[in-house]
Amino acid sequence: MANSKPKLNIGLIGTGFMGKTHTFGFAAANRVFDLPYDLVLRAVADRTDELAAAAGAEFGFETSTGDWRSIIDDASIDVVDITTPNALHKEMALAAIAAGKHVYCEKPLAPLAADAIEMAEAAEAAGIRTQVGFNYLCNPIMILAREMIQSGELGEIRSFRGVHAEEFMADASNPGGFRVDPAGGGAFADIGSHALATAEYLLGPITAVMGDFVTAIKERPDGKGGTRQIEVDDIGRAFLRFENGASGNIEASWIATGQEMQHDFEIYGSKGAILFTQERLNELRYYNASDPEGRRGFRTILAGPEHPPYGRFCVAGGHQLGFNDLKAIEVQGFVQAIAGERPEPFNFRAGARIMTVIEAIATSSKARAWMEL
Amino acid sequence: MANSKPKLNIGLIGTGFMGKTHTFGFAAANRVFDLPYDLVLRAVADRTDELAAAAGAEFGFETSTGDWRSIIDDASIDVVDITTPNALHKEMALAAIAAGKHVYCEKPLAPLAADAIEMAEAAEAAGIRTQVGFNYLCNPIMILAREMIQSGELGEIRSFRGVHAEEFMADASNPGGFRVDPAGGGAFADIGSHALATAEYLLGPITAVMGDFVTAIKERPDGKGGTRQIEVDDIGRAFLRFENGASGNIEASWIATGQEMQHDFEIYGSKGAILFTQERLNELRYYNASDPEGRRGFRTILAGPEHPPYGRFCVAGGHQLGFNDLKAIEVQGFVQAIAGERPEPFNFRAGARIMTVIEAIATSSKARAWMEL
Amino acid sequence: MANSKPKLNIGLIGTGFMGKTHTFGFAAANRVFDLPYDLVLRAVADRTDELAAAAGAEFGFETSTGDWRSIIDDASIDVVDITTPNALHKEMALAAIAAGKHVYCEKPLAPLAADAIEMAEAAEAAGIRTQVGFNYLCNPIMILAREMIQSGELGEIRSFRGVHAEEFMADASNPGGFRVDPAGGGAFADIGSHALATAEYLLGPITAVMGDFVTAIKERPDGKGGTRQIEVDDIGRAFLRFENGASGNIEASWIATGQEMQHDFEIYGSKGAILFTQERLNELRYYNASDPEGRRGFRTILAGPEHPPYGRFCVAGGHQLGFNDLKAIEVQGFVQAIAGERPEPFNFRAGARIMTVIEAIATSSKARAWMEL
Amino acid sequence: MANSKPKLNIGLIGTGFMGKTHTFGFAAANRVFDLPYDLVLRAVADRTDELAAAAGAEFGFETSTGDWRSIIDDASIDVVDITTPNALHKEMALAAIAAGKHVYCEKPLAPLAADAIEMAEAAEAAGIRTQVGFNYLCNPIMILAREMIQSGELGEIRSFRGVHAEEFMADASNPGGFRVDPAGGGAFADIGSHALATAEYLLGPITAVMGDFVTAIKERPDGKGGTRQIEVDDIGRAFLRFENGASGNIEASWIATGQEMQHDFEIYGSKGAILFTQERLNELRYYNASDPEGRRGFRTILAGPEHPPYGRFCVAGGHQLGFNDLKAIEVQGFVQAIAGERPEPFNFRAGARIMTVIEAIATSSKARAWMEL
Repeated sequence: MANSKPKLNIGLIGTGFMGKTHTFGFAAANRVFDLPYDLVLRAVADRTDELAAAAGAEFGFETSTGDWRSIIDDASIDVVDITTPNALHKEMALAAIAAGKHVYCEKPLAPLAADAIEMAEAAEAAGIRTQVGFNYLCNPIMILAREMIQSGELGEIRSFRGVHAEEFMADASNPGGFRVDPAGGGAFADIGSHALATAEYLLGPITAVMGDFVTAIKERPDGKGGTRQIEVDDIGRAFLRFENGASGNIEASWIATGQEMQHDFEIYGSKGAILFTQERLNELRYYNASDPEGRRGFRTILAGPEHPPYGRFCVAGGHQLGFNDLKAIEVQGFVQAIAGERPEPFNFRAGARIMTVIEAIATSSKARAWMEL
Repeated sequence: MANSKPKLNIGLIGTGFMGKTHTFGFAAANRVFDLPYDLVLRAVADRTDELAAAAGAEFGFETSTGDWRSIIDDASIDVVDITTPNALHKEMALAAIAAGKHVYCEKPLAPLAADAIEMAEAAEAAGIRTQVGFNYLCNPIMILAREMIQSGELGEIRSFRGVHAEEFMADASNPGGFRVDPAGGGAFADIGSHALATAEYLLGPITAVMGDFVTAIKERPDGKGGTRQIEVDDIGRAFLRFENGASGNIEASWIATGQEMQHDFEIYGSKGAILFTQERLNELRYYNASDPEGRRGFRTILAGPEHPPYGRFCVAGGHQLGFNDLKAIEVQGFVQAIAGERPEPFNFRAGARIMTVIEAIATSSKARAWMEL
Repeated sequence: MANSKPKLNIGLIGTGFMGKTHTFGFAAANRVFDLPYDLVLRAVADRTDELAAAAGAEFGFETSTGDWRSIIDDASIDVVDITTPNALHKEMALAAIAAGKHVYCEKPLAPLAADAIEMAEAAEAAGIRTQVGFNYLCNPIMILAREMIQSGELGEIRSFRGVHAEEFMADASNPGGFRVDPAGGGAFADIGSHALATAEYLLGPITAVMGDFVTAIKERPDGKGGTRQIEVDDIGRAFLRFENGASGNIEASWIATGQEMQHDFEIYGSKGAILFTQERLNELRYYNASDPEGRRGFRTILAGPEHPPYGRFCVAGGHQLGFNDLKAIEVQGFVQAIAGERPEPFNFRAGARIMTVIEAIATSSKARAWMEL
Repeated sequence: MANSKPKLNIGLIGTGFMGKTHTFGFAAANRVFDLPYDLVLRAVADRTDELAAAAGAEFGFETSTGDWRSIIDDASIDVVDITTPNALHKEMALAAIAAGKHVYCEKPLAPLAADAIEMAEAAEAAGIRTQVGFNYLCNPIMILAREMIQSGELGEIRSFRGVHAEEFMADASNPGGFRVDPAGGGAFADIGSHALATAEYLLGPITAVMGDFVTAIKERPDGKGGTRQIEVDDIGRAFLRFENGASGNIEASWIATGQEMQHDFEIYGSKGAILFTQERLNELRYYNASDPEGRRGFRTILAGPEHPPYGRFCVAGGHQLGFNDLKAIEVQGFVQAIAGERPEPFNFRAGARIMTVIEAIATSSKARAWMEL
């Protein structure tokens, strides 16, 4: 049936979990939202022709290739989507930018801030649109939280507590693989980045940090029958100062036994407070200090049509959005930015910024001293 | 790119909220699961050619029509999906069955149990596959709950408490429309059906009921500037007896101020208990009576890859499934049944059964006496 | 140090758990509240002189006796407090009333409603003050809930759900003792009475009931090496009609595996709703339908000084009251009633009323028919 | 009635909120526990004879005095209980110690660590028993948490998060009084001390700290119509290292809008984790990593008779202990220590230790550098 919208052809590089999740996001965004483009799964690349062909068939791409550069060289492709291991992001993204493609890249943008900054600068020079995948920020509840802060509804913001803790490295017999590589590894870089992104998304720029990185499990299997000493952090903490005058703390842990997705925050203002936990991503706990005496308390706001773009998914509150729905919202934001309808929601500059803050915290921890940003 | 799977062509009749949700489900199921068919959005019908064409473009159907019978007559169509107002279900479903199509129909199957039974019998006689959309049952947590019951993990099941309460009719100035029609309307038929479906899904057949229907808001606007007397229930309750020996109660309310999706249950067995609330659909609260003394308590199990088919959506626990994901699972079950890979998850017979139980409860309420089933 | 208050001499009959709890209540009430009397633990009676002497020393009574009638005959005693097994309440209370004592009696007032009514009538004829121990009602949060209902803050009250469920009889090897005696036993009489007391305390008189009593565990040990058939209910349910126009349901269960004190209610009005669970007795969940759109949700009100008499125990909110504190409040209410400062909070008439409603529900269950009250 | 126990005569100095709470504690402990002594409220002192006489009558003391030194000089008094403003603790305690009395003192022991240490040394030299009032530690749930840690049930303890946040200073128009005095004031000293006490009670000695104190509200009314600059912290944070190898963080805030008693902790070990919030002081959330796959989750353990000394208060779980009950347990521990039945639960040395850690954190914050302890 004739769809009058212009096509936006996607070329995906990388077909692991995040690659698959991105295709869910494209497919859903196409239907859930009234996008300015018709998203087309044009081509997918993996390490071999066979792997790529299999993924192409499974994910529904029109063509596939064992050579990622043929995605770059394909003139029909508008957007290059990179979901490969972190170490490959830079080369691929720079090539895509050079070819004039818009680039969508999973987080972290690159293992080192300097590389991420180079990528951001290249994108800005080329004038293309970029996006880094921080999907937790795409939650209608998170958007609501930011509105409540920016509108002054919570008054002057005074303090922030943020955490991103999981348990997937709590078992000391888990070798950890690339995650424990001295260059770019560690809990704070891996998942603390989510907590930092949330912090700046909600409160604005961080201006100073004091880090505290701890290696709790000092030895892990090396995957070859022996053991190796671990240098990267299992737990990373930081004190924070924000440009808006607030102070805060943040913690990342990948050894938090029992925690599956403790991406939580607490924000205290002069007129109210909000509390959030990602494991209940459709809820915001809100305290309004001007409620009448004897009737005050944290209320649980459930996501609903009053909290866009929830209403695109469900007509009534109480139906839950899920993780994959957030990815559809992420895609929507990027596609709208490509069409010039809105600023980029979380571009390479923002992704580089997170890497810069992470490095400052890591340096601060090593130096045992505060660092200005 | 060549997809070697056979196509399953879908014809959708009705393009409202549920029609849209179904297209989300088809699109997602195609990608999330490794289905035996490639689902194709072949044709969509609405009341006029223009409405149908608009929905076709928005939803991504290949063709559209203002005449639902042309969906029935289209030899290329394998599945007719009916999301029109309840009063139209029977005629459309019988026509589709007569044409040899598989039929997917939103709940309730028909306003009267007799009609629903007629539909079920027609489907069985024709040998086609049917499905009624009770998506709450498609939750991995609900599947887990049933396994825990059926495996004996909770011991002998002794009691059940179920509720489905919302607030959308709590405002007495809401006219209610078709929902308050004396024939087939009322809170219990509308949403109590969900609670009943959950009850029988988990505990098996109900054998006796005692109903208690209440019209709390006795007068509503008639939509023409006047008022009309309301006869249908705002709140419907029932005592239940199950074939497995358990007893229980159930309540439906559409005037439960503050409740958006209180589709909850509590089940008590001799070895344990489980508690669930739909507003936190990724959680099951579980009490194991054999935990050591001093360490007992209700634990919160979070849906994860250990609870199929969660792992098709996300690789790790703590990421949430949403309402629309349940619809994808519903589609998967139906498509697998069409391929003969599994029994129909919730066919017209099951849908008719729910209508029969609802009518028994309504009759019991009016007679103020227990009814056997 | 001279305490200028008149003394109120207490004579306690029965030294089990509730007897001990009452002495906690007297001691605490004396200090926490500014009572019109100085409460004096004057005499305690138990089955033998030895038992009574031991309890007297432990509890701090001035004298003790193995003959409860000497409590009645003691002219110095103002209040007779009865915490003996239920079957003994009537004889003791009537004797105390005849002697002109004020009488404080644990619940249930008597196994049969007729006896309880006789006790209430005797008390009224004698003009003495009486109290039945329904301590859950003495919670500042419960008092708040009633105020919110009676002031109209929740609007027209439409529905009530109440439950009192525990697990202490869930083990089929528990003989049950007096609790499973055909006369006066059963879960509904034992603990459903609490749920009923809460229902009428909050919503006012019940006018009609439909009961449903179930014996889930049909055989228990007889304590002599054999088994006996159980006739009383393990689970008792009822539909309710209230004089104020609301309808509701209620459930009592002593086989609710995992539940230690599920004394909960949900009340829905036209302007708001309140939810409560006894296991978090310092919290009331409150929904205000007039909160702004997008900011609505159930808030958790924590008991604090704004909710009298909380402030007598703690100067700030967030410090919790405990079960024994409720007993101190119960004592306060009774003592103030004795001094003529307020009506009796829950007198024998109210206690008899509960027995009457219980019997109506039991009769209704047996007759399988609604009963008017 | 003859009570054969020896008397322990109490002399209380100070009759404010904590003074009253202590008398609740003495009265309750006498009845709830089978103490080695009969506690006698012998004498109470306040600033004037009139105030003391009024409190004596209200609280039930035998005598009263306007001169606290007469409490010290009273040879019949065994225990001096000090609940006066902090600045007076030292002089009174040293006098009581010199007179050979056992001393019970509210927290903080003294505004400066040096003074607190002097008090501890004097007490040790005199051989008398001392106690500082950290009642949160007297919770059966807290005792359970420590047992789970010390027994190895949670495995190797890896991390700690602690907070004590309230909102009582969130309003910038609150002058703050003695709480904002540059010497000894501030949120961390005032309430962070509770979080520190919990941290060391559960995990053992802290060995290094990095502090971060923030004055969020820089100006408050001076109480004379003008304003004054505030120097003390509204929010105090610290990174922690423990002797047992764990690391952690801690936060104190008295401007946490909406929080009434957020005295919470999270502790992660290699075999499990526990979470606690003081606003639900009868609950411990516990994760057991060895629960079977698909059945893991944080369970809510409710305080019950399995968690001594809960059973002294109530015979069954699910009845809640309250704040004042914790004070009774605190009294019990001290009285048992006086009788030589157990070590002092939280003596002056422990109280001085808390002051030392607070000062180290404050110094660290000012120096912007880690401090060893």
